[in-house]
Amino acid sequence: MTSSPYLVGLVGQGVGPSLTPALHMAEARAHGLNYVYRTIDLNAAGLTPDRIGEILTWARALGFDALNITHPCKRSVIPHLDRLDDGAAALGAVNTVVFQTTGTVGYNTDAPGFARGFAEGLPGAATSHVVLLGAGGAGAAVGHALLDLGTAHLTIVDVDVERATTLAGELAARHRDAHVDVSPSDKLSILLPSSDGVVHCTPTGMADHPGLPFDAGLLHPGLWVADIVYRPLDTELLTAARRAGCRTLDGGHMAVHQAAIAFELITGITPDADRMSRHFRTLAT
Amino acid sequence: MTSSPYLVGLVGQGVGPSLTPALHMAEARAHGLNYVYRTIDLNAAGLTPDRIGEILTWARALGFDALNITHPCKRSVIPHLDRLDDGAAALGAVNTVVFQTTGTVGYNTDAPGFARGFAEGLPGAATSHVVLLGAGGAGAAVGHALLDLGTAHLTIVDVDVERATTLAGELAARHRDAHVDVSPSDKLSILLPSSDGVVHCTPTGMADHPGLPFDAGLLHPGLWVADIVYRPLDTELLTAARRAGCRTLDGGHMAVHQAAIAFELITGITPDADRMSRHFRTLAT
Repeated sequence: MTSSPYLVGLVGQGVGPSLTPALHMAEARAHGLNYVYRTIDLNAAGLTPDRIGEILTWARALGFDALNITHPCKRSVIPHLDRLDDGAAALGAVNTVVFQTTGTVGYNTDAPGFARGFAEGLPGAATSHVVLLGAGGAGAAVGHALLDLGTAHLTIVDVDVERATTLAGELAARHRDAHVDVSPSDKLSILLPSSDGVVHCTPTGMADHPGLPFDAGLLHPGLWVADIVYRPLDTELLTAARRAGCRTLDGGHMAVHQAAIAFELITGITPDADRMSRHFRTLAT
Repeated sequence: MTSSPYLVGLVGQGVGPSLTPALHMAEARAHGLNYVYRTIDLNAAGLTPDRIGEILTWARALGFDALNITHPCKRSVIPHLDRLDDGAAALGAVNTVVFQTTGTVGYNTDAPGFARGFAEGLPGAATSHVVLLGAGGAGAAVGHALLDLGTAHLTIVDVDVERATTLAGELAARHRDAHVDVSPSDKLSILLPSSDGVVHCTPTGMADHPGLPFDAGLLHPGLWVADIVYRPLDTELLTAARRAGCRTLDGGHMAVHQAAIAFELITGITPDADRMSRHFRTLAT
């Protein structure tokens, strides 16, 4: 890959408050690396998202080693890459671009980031039947990860049934041994009592979208509950789930592991994910 | 100014082998700063010099704090700046651009870099009559510095007499107490015997331009000799000058101090110029 010093950026809308730069830089410092990670907020820089190709060209010309890519450019960045790794191709979304000497390569560390976080935070959890709440970009990454983790039956619930159906089709095509179906959101009362777990992938519960994504009365001790929201780390959903006796997984696990995997893609150095996690929790709380 | 981490670049042609990035980064590390300094070689990046305005715009958008600017953009960068400090305005050349929140500001650290290096390496040297050999960009910076240092009579010698005359006019206009004149290069045999010192500002003596800029027989113990070439540090001119009993000043002094002054403009932190100098000499030899 590249050698120290490292120059990395995060491109997207509203990335100013992201914790990812601090996560990368603290871990790099622990490895003795000189590593600068800049947020490139499209709005603050006066750049429209359709200029993502130019942004890549200039970042490469000005000496960046890699970029993390987030909303709204995770899909639109793809035509501007020389190569796509298998995971990013499966998702049709890229969150990490590495400027290699042989070309510009796109990766997606969201799905493996969720998988590692799940193994870390909910070891041994049953995954026979899992409900995925939210079929957007994060939901797609989590859906792939759940099926990779061995989920036999995945039910996708989204207020936008068409979006849920499209994602179900994509996931089923990639994971032919699994059963992937779609359910309207008013059927959660039927689904959740017989499910092993639920992963929440909508913005509900974020600081500016407070609330619960479904009736807390549906929570039961046989259900594990994962949230990918990490601001706050302790969402209303997770608080209610613990009160109901559920095992829970907060969004910090995925946030840390997607960053850890990106760090390794960029530097070739395996980070200490436990150290990154401890650091993240001091920043996020 | 800005706060750590710092992101700085050097824009120009053939900047790949520059020692300035290593100088800045080592000094920053000694201050505990996370500081990445990238070379942005126009040829390697496929950028023509007339795109310097775009380079500034993108560097600012992608999170750079500052750029050093070198050949061939030191003059052409000026129309793209919001403000110019007095020294850069006097020279009509910028070698340091700082992206401040209030705008993009151009500085020139070459002239004060030479002045500090001169005071450091040739303390007490007489400056009543000095010959400046070479009227290009470096010669202009050194000429301003010499007059600031109190040179009463400066004679500019360049094979391009028109260029020498133009520079003499500019210097005389800025330093009305001094006498600035021009001499053809074949008159050095008359000039040097009565001069206090000579500063060599042409490429002769650089690794790919070996040789002496004038007949070594003109060197005499009453003449100090300064070279701004620093690759190699010990040029043929300086070797011959030492042999002739002259006090000498190598190009490393100016190279280090221009970088030290830029470092302070960028970070607001006064660097340890002695430490930078020791580091430079381990890199340059």
